[in-house]
Order: sequence, then C-alpha cells, then structure tokens
Amino acid sequence: MTKTNPGRFFEDYRVGQVIRHAVPRTVAEGERALYHALYPARHALYSSDEFAAACGLDGSPLDDLIAFHVVFGKTVPDISLNAIANLGYAEGRWLRPVMPGDTLRSESQVIGLKENSNGTSGVVYVRTRGLNQVGEVVLEYVRWVMVRKRDASAPAPEPVVPPLASVVDVADLVIPDGFSFDDYDFELAGENHRLSDYRVGERIDHVDGVTIEEAEHMLATRLWQNTAKVHFDATFREDGRRLIYGGHIISMARALSFNGLANAQMIVALNGGAHANPCFAGDTIRAWSEVLDIAETDVPGVGAIRLRLVATKGDSSAFALRGADGKYAPDVLLDLDYWALMPV
Amino acid sequence: MTKTNPGRFFEDYRVGQVIRHAVPRTVAEGERALYHALYPARHALYSSDEFAAACGLDGSPLDDLIAFHVVFGKTVPDISLNAIANLGYAEGRWLRPVMPGDTLRSESQVIGLKENSNGTSGVVYVRTRGLNQVGEVVLEYVRWVMVRKRDASAPAPEPVVPPLASVVDVADLVIPDGFSFDDYDFELAGENHRLSDYRVGERIDHVDGVTIEEAEHMLATRLWQNTAKVHFDATFREDGRRLIYGGHIISMARALSFNGLANAQMIVALNGGAHANPCFAGDTIRAWSEVLDIAETDVPGVGAIRLRLVATKGDSSAFALRGADGKYAPDVLLDLDYWALMPV
Amino acid sequence: MTKTNPGRFFEDYRVGQVIRHAVPRTVAEGERALYHALYPARHALYSSDEFAAACGLDGSPLDDLIAFHVVFGKTVPDISLNAIANLGYAEGRWLRPVMPGDTLRSESQVIGLKENSNGTSGVVYVRTRGLNQVGEVVLEYVRWVMVRKRDASAPAPEPVVPPLASVVDVADLVIPDGFSFDDYDFELAGENHRLSDYRVGERIDHVDGVTIEEAEHMLATRLWQNTAKVHFDATFREDGRRLIYGGHIISMARALSFNGLANAQMIVALNGGAHANPCFAGDTIRAWSEVLDIAETDVPGVGAIRLRLVATKGDSSAFALRGADGKYAPDVLLDLDYWALMPV
Repeated sequence: MTKTNPGRFFEDYRVGQVIRHAVPRTVAEGERALYHALYPARHALYSSDEFAAACGLDGSPLDDLIAFHVVFGKTVPDISLNAIANLGYAEGRWLRPVMPGDTLRSESQVIGLKENSNGTSGVVYVRTRGLNQVGEVVLEYVRWVMVRKRDASAPAPEPVVPPLASVVDVADLVIPDGFSFDDYDFELAGENHRLSDYRVGERIDHVDGVTIEEAEHMLATRLWQNTAKVHFDATFREDGRRLIYGGHIISMARALSFNGLANAQMIVALNGGAHANPCFAGDTIRAWSEVLDIAETDVPGVGAIRLRLVATKGDSSAFALRGADGKYAPDVLLDLDYWALMPV
Repeated sequence: MTKTNPGRFFEDYRVGQVIRHAVPRTVAEGERALYHALYPARHALYSSDEFAAACGLDGSPLDDLIAFHVVFGKTVPDISLNAIANLGYAEGRWLRPVMPGDTLRSESQVIGLKENSNGTSGVVYVRTRGLNQVGEVVLEYVRWVMVRKRDASAPAPEPVVPPLASVVDVADLVIPDGFSFDDYDFELAGENHRLSDYRVGERIDHVDGVTIEEAEHMLATRLWQNTAKVHFDATFREDGRRLIYGGHIISMARALSFNGLANAQMIVALNGGAHANPCFAGDTIRAWSEVLDIAETDVPGVGAIRLRLVATKGDSSAFALRGADGKYAPDVLLDLDYWALMPV
Repeated sequence: MTKTNPGRFFEDYRVGQVIRHAVPRTVAEGERALYHALYPARHALYSSDEFAAACGLDGSPLDDLIAFHVVFGKTVPDISLNAIANLGYAEGRWLRPVMPGDTLRSESQVIGLKENSNGTSGVVYVRTRGLNQVGEVVLEYVRWVMVRKRDASAPAPEPVVPPLASVVDVADLVIPDGFSFDDYDFELAGENHRLSDYRVGERIDHVDGVTIEEAEHMLATRLWQNTAKVHFDATFREDGRRLIYGGHIISMARALSFNGLANAQMIVALNGGAHANPCFAGDTIRAWSEVLDIAETDVPGVGAIRLRLVATKGDSSAFALRGADGKYAPDVLLDLDYWALMPV
C-alpha cells in the first residue's frame, strides 16, 4: 500500500465535511524579505514598522497576500492535487493582520458539490479559513475547483451549489482595531492621491513590466508550501513547460499596481477572481486596474476602494480584457476583484 | 606573495591536526525562510513553532540540514578547495537543535591520511564538529576527501585509515532534552503512518519531481558560504556547466521524501552517503527511500527509522540504484543512509 | 490625468531643493540572509553576532552595502527614473551601523545643476542621506546623474557644479562608538593579513568568479525596492536584454574581495565610483583590488585601508583597467574607490 498522498478525488468529498489541512507554518521577517525580493512590493504599510505604527498597528504586518498564499498552499494537497481547473473565488475577507512570528494553519469546509455532465469530474466548493496560533481566523474565502473522479461509475452526489455573494458588502469589511489614517504621510507612502481623487470607472495603466524567470516563480510557490507538481517539474506537461502558480501573478500584479495605487494600502476583501490564461517563464507581466466602487467605512478617514486588477502579458495601456465573444483576450492572465483600504 | 587562499594540499595535513574554520555564522528566521523557498520542505517540526513546542522544544529549530550545510560550508576553504572528490561520510550525529539566533562555527580534526598509489593525491579523513556560540557541539561527522598534492615528490605520510562505524548505534542517537511525541498531531503533520506502519525493506517512491535552476542551486550554496568555484563559475569546467553542490541534492531529496515520510521528523544521524553522479541545472530530481532498520529509543514513544534516501534524475518508481557491475546507475545522484526520529 | 509616477525631468530640479523619498523600509534578519544567498559574502563582522560583539558592537550589523542599496533604491523614482546615465559618486560616508529592525528612509538635496550643451538633458547633483527610525543619519553620499529634459525649449538653469572632494579625508571617517579590533580573531576572520601586511600600490587578484543569472540580479534589485524598468523588463531594450543594476556588481565584487581582503571588515567611505560598462546575465564576474592608501585612525588598533575595487567580466589576474586611449577596457564593469577599517 502506498504511503504517499494520492490526493482526494471528487467522490471523496461530502457537503459539510471539514478538512484540517496539514503543516502549520510560522511566518516571520524572512518571509517578508523574500516577498520583497520576489515582487516589486512597495506599499509602505508592509515595508516599514514605523509607517504601520503611525496607522495604529503594532508594527508592519506581513503582506496580505503572504497570508493568502500560505493559507491557500496548505489546501493544495487536500483540494487541488487532482484538480483540472481552479474555477473561482468569492467572499474572501482578511480578518486580522498576520504579524511576524504568527503561525498559520488552514481548514476547509465543503460547501457545495456538483458533478459534471460528462460523469468524469465535478465541481467542489470549499470555504477555507486561515487560523493563527491562538485559533483566531485571519482570513477566509470560498474557492471552487473542478476535480477528477477516481471512478467514473461512482454515483453522483446530490448537487449543492452554494449561493455566493458577487461582492463583499462594505459593512462586512473588517478594519483592524485601532487602525487609522489620521497621521498618514502621503509623501512617505509615495503618492498624493486619496480616495476622493479616484472615480468609479477610472482605469489606471501601471506602466511597469517584469519578465518572469523559472527560478523566481518556483522560489515563491515553494515558500507557500504549494506542492502542485505542474509548477516544479518540467517533465510533467507534454510541452516541457512549468505552469506558473496563479498566486504568483496575483502578487506580481498587485505589486506593480503600486504605481498609481500606492495608497490602496490594505487588502480587506477578495470579491472574485479568474486566472484567465496560463503564464510561463519568459512572459513579461504588466497590470492595469479599474475602479469598480468607492465607499466610506465605519472608521472615519478610512475609505474602501473596490478594484479590478488585470494582469496581462501584453500591453497594459490597451486595457484589454475580453474579446467580442465575451472570452478573455489571450494576453490576459488574471482578472481579480478586491477591496482595499485607502485614506479618504 | 599572494594574499588569497590557495587551499591546503595533501602534504599540508597531519594526523591529529585540528583546523579551526573561519567565518562564524549567525543563522535565524531568514535562513529558515530561504530554506523553505529553495526546497519543498514540509516537515512540521521545522515549519511551526507551535508544533515544535508540542514536541517539547522551545520553538521550531532550523532544519537539521541547514546545520549540516553551514558547518560543512565552513570546511570547504580548508578541506576541499583542492579536492578531486568527496568520497564519503560516516559517524554523523546531530547533538543539539540549532535555534534561530544561534551562531555556528566549525572545527575539523585530521583523523586519517593515505596517499594514493599514483603519488599525486591522497585521501584525507577529518572529523568535523559544528559548535554554537556557547561552545556546545551541535553536529559532528566524519568525511573523507581525495586531495591533490602540491608536489608529487613530497614524501608519503605513514598511512592511517581510521576505523569507522558502518552505522551509528541506536544507543548513540541523541534525542533533545524534553523531546516527546506524546502530543503529536498526525493530521497537522500531514500523514497517519507511524513507525509501526513501516517494515524493514519497504521502499517508497516519493513521486514528485523538481527541475533544478542555476539561480536556485547557487543561492543555496552561497547561503551556506560554500566557496567551491565549480558551483558558481560557468567558465571553470571545460563543458561550461556548473556542478551542483551535493548538499543541494541532499536537501532536495529529503524535502521530496515528505511525501511518504512526513513523520520522519528529526534527522539524528548520518550513517553514510555517496554523491553517485554529478547533477546539473535542467535535471529533474526525484527521490525514493528504503527502510533499512527500525528501532526504539530510550525515550518512550520516540522511535528511530533508518532510511536509505536515493535521489535520481530518472524515474523514481523504478527504484534503480546499482547496475549489474555494482556501480551506481547513471541516473542516481545520491545514496544517503540516515536515522530519523518518528512516533512509534 | 495619469496617477502613475512619470519621474522628474531635468527642469523639475532646483538647487537647494530637498526631496523626501518614499517608502521607508524596515530591514532585518531576512535581508541579511538574502544578502548571503545573493553574494558570496563572508566578512565575519557581518556574519556572526559573536564576532561583532567582540568588536564592540551590539551584534552583527547589516552589510554596509545593504544600507547603501536600500538608501539608493528609494531615490530611483525621484532621481533616476528619466536618467540617461549614472555619472559618479563622491563624499560617501557610513555614519552608523544599520542593525536588524532598523527602518531606513532617504532624503536628497539638489546641490548642483548643469544643462548639457545639446539642450536635451543635464546633470543633476544630489547629496543623499539615509536616516533611521530615530532620525539619525546612517549614510550619506553625493551622486550625479544625467537626466532628460521634458521639454528641450525649457530655459537652462544657472549652472552650479558643486566642489567635491576626490577622497574622504581620514579624519572624517566615522568609527562606531566602542568599536575595537583589540580582541580580533584572525583565524575566525579567515586571513592573517593585517594593515601592516599591505603596501600602497599592491594589487590583489581575488581569483574566484561568479556567473550571473537573471533571477538573481532581479531578486537583489527588487529587494532594495529599486524600480528602474531596465533591470526587470526584457522588452524594454531593443536587444531584449535586462541591464544589471550597478549595485549588484558592487556587492558581488566586494564579496569576492574577501579572498585576499578578509580583514577589510567595515566600509566607512565611498570616495568615488564608475560603472564602466554594462553587465548582463551570463557574464562571469571577477574582481581585483589595488591598495590606494593606508592610514591610522583616532581609534588605536583600527586602521583604514583605501582600496580600488575593480569588477571585470574578463580575467582578473590581468589587472586591466583602462586602454591606451584612457577609456575603461571593455571587460571592466566597475571601478570603485572606498575606505574600509582593518586591524593595524
């Protein structure tokens, strides 16, 4: 009997089932430094303890996407080892900053199952929670994935498709206790634009491009203990190429978006997202954003900006997204919808 | 007169001589994070402060192989700068976990010398010890290396070949004070297999593969302050290829072995090892293990498993090791024999 | 109106103007570990807390060049985004070691302006200061850069060319309070040569070579939050090559110079420097040094050595620098003039 993990297949999931994912992880200054080496990350809140203290935090938290990647990575052996495709995200919320020294683990609950009509695969919906060392939830999100069946003759489960919000309500955004932009230093943050300088529908070309190397995306993906073979093993795909972890593109695009959105400091919600096309080493990544909404929050001075973040391997100044057929343009890699906090 | 280090030649060594190696090194969270970025390391004891505390430690130690690489790297300028080949390891023991903030240095004693019959080189045996900032030995091992003579006419020393144990006795394995698996969480560790689930002779294909990049093996090798030219300088070898540090393959194979040996948590002894064939960037590394022995220790609940860890650039599921001629198969890169601690 | 940073053009600078650069940065053990992974850095003062404590410091500071790169990187969006060339450095001094946990920011004062005769660009001279979280200056240097004009018809400013010292006076070198080489351990430092073993005019071939990879120079350059497109975007230059950040070559050459200058521990002044030729991935970097001066300081036992550090992609043992025409030889990448502290 094999001792290695074959991963779960579609028929191994039950609605209501809770999976406690393995390998808790303590994250600290080392992960922060690597994040700055891997991505051109410059948001001041995640770069300077003093800047973060001026915003009411105990010091600079780890990047919100470090929290996401670590929590996500732990789910891979249980959720997506036999996945055909990562289909979507919804109802993602960051509930508590992750500080150096925190230990994260992940749990997922199966909230929906729907076999595909071909009978060889099905869609699994999970709500994943990241917890810290004292059991506080730091992050939660829903993800749905198309997973192979082990045995095509296994009976289809009762289909359950969970109702999912298309956008996290502003009232549900969680702002850390004591968080404030009252002493915000726009000069140190890098730009003067505050929430009132943006308008819904505005699009921003983030201008800069980064050509991706094999070594870099593998370092990143391993750092989050994401074990999916396709990212590391050049012999796995017929074309001899290693598929880049979609989260690498999320972090690259978010970091590039500093140029024009330097004050969109803290990511607080993930409304949705699609990895539109695969990305490979040698591609040059650029990004553009569209302002989808602007809102006040319960905390005076702290606004929320809802952004569409698009990563492309083409020209970001063209703002391409979908073709006439409604499908993503071939150069589009990522279409992400999130809320961030910004001084009003 | 040159100010640079020409390295020692065979005739520069004397049996009994103690060499205090240069450049002590403080290791901390940064080295840990890089280790996780460079290798798919997932053993929970080295990933989570909480998991380690539940095993009776003060927090998560640095990976046992970080300790090995740092201690080993310091010996290179004194032992292997003029080496032709790294011939073997024996009697390796980890005596004390290395915690973030510890400072390591290395000392080696020459314990054997034997000139080769060709008169141009000889074998040097050293026992190397890694010490922390308070002088405690954290690690020791014997290594023997074939080293060039500066001058072929230099007289051969009296040959001394030290007696070396083929395996570290279980009674000599050192388990940290207070170490316990009584509160071990198999679910968080990632697998349910305990010592009693393994049998001597069992072989495990670790399934996953990693294709190696130049940038990654150089980052790793530099991190351990290993200065051997052949790893960094593409103009050094006639074929323009950089030889990958054998320790990079050890760490890669050990990390891959998580899949099937997730509970072989702590490496406590190195019985022997051979770098069977050279490895170069572009090779895809896979690993398989064979259970060589199983034993109880003095600490109730803490078992020891003796493993052969084989890294290959071929198909790990074939369990290839040696050809009919007794030589290592051409795809085999590493044949390592070690003891690890596992819940009984 | 665009929200992205177009950078400053020549006509945007005024003599006397002070620019407070964005994005303060807390640096810690993670940056130290990455520095050791990116460069073969072995100077013991920056490797071991215990070695540094024996020299009178509170622990091992971050490498002097980490401080330089972080302070420099912050100036890029304000000073060199529209630069044609980085022309020179002068009057650089390290005033205070940077310890893990310190937060750095940068300020530059424009101290000179001179339009070029072609009317399309000009030279901007700035004195940049790096400050820590309590406002102490940790580093200062003068840099001059050739910057494009936005509008060729903009009037030329009154030319101001600041007087700059060709070398920092020994009396102006700052030695940290309590710093001492009285308990210096030459064996642990790696070499026996003290200041009195070097003579002015002596040249040292540092022997070792490192072949540079795209992933490595990009990791390094991003780590310092240097945003210059030309380092990251393979589509930016017509030849499809990414130009390597000159600071990467400085750090590589300095690290290589350990072999022969292991006791040139602390960099205290940058007298001047030129990035003689561009460097690209695939180049193999070697280094040689020339002793330009030797001096005592106010602190007994602490000497100062003035060094020319030359990086080359050719043969370092040829000590090539300039051709008969007075121009840098085509293989020369860097010509740096600095003071370091060494036991007398």
